[in-house]
Amino acid sequence: MSREAAQPLQSPCYVAVFTSRRATAHDAAYQATAERMPLLAEAQDGFLGMDSVRNADGLGITVSYWRDLESIAAWKAQPEHVLAQRRGASEWYAQFELRIARVERAYAGP
Amino acid sequence: MSREAAQPLQSPCYVAVFTSRRATAHDAAYQATAERMPLLAEAQDGFLGMDSVRNADGLGITVSYWRDLESIAAWKAQPEHVLAQRRGASEWYAQFELRIARVERAYAGP
Repeated sequence: MSREAAQPLQSPCYVAVFTSRRATAHDAAYQATAERMPLLAEAQDGFLGMDSVRNADGLGITVSYWRDLESIAAWKAQPEHVLAQRRGASEWYAQFELRIARVERAYAGP
Repeated sequence: MSREAAQPLQSPCYVAVFTSRRATAHDAAYQATAERMPLLAEAQDGFLGMDSVRNADGLGITVSYWRDLESIAAWKAQPEHVLAQRRGASEWYAQFELRIARVERAYAGP
């Protein structure tokens, strides 16, 4: 997986599920931000891993894994991420949903 | 969102995060199964919604939402789904991970 956690099945941990639909097909500022956010996230204390997929229709799902709710709150408040969230809400996304969930079980295969 | 929950922010609920990488670029049986599984899931008691994205590189993320752990267990044991899981593990996926998590907070926008 891309940007996979060093310990992907570590538990307990938390997952942030971000589902979004792009408002516009292309935007250079969006692309730059989309490339930068994972680098910033990886530098945060408590970051465990991330997978992100967007299809040609503009539907995207990003799941990121965190040690605890505190590390998610710190990532939410990271200044450059705050700016990205604002532009996401005002310009880049037609719709988005974010869910924070506590991982209770994990499996991997084959 | 595709196959969105009627009450997407309903809480508490559970999310199944399935991240997978396809082993082969194309497979008719896989495609048929990939189209059928959401229909079966929607018919399950406790199903709340689903989003699924796969990109051109073969990396996919499917998140499905469920009322409780019992409804997830019932879906896992659904006979046609069991067969799909077996073929997924033996043929279709180079790698997959499944995490079951309890949704604690939910946000939507813009």
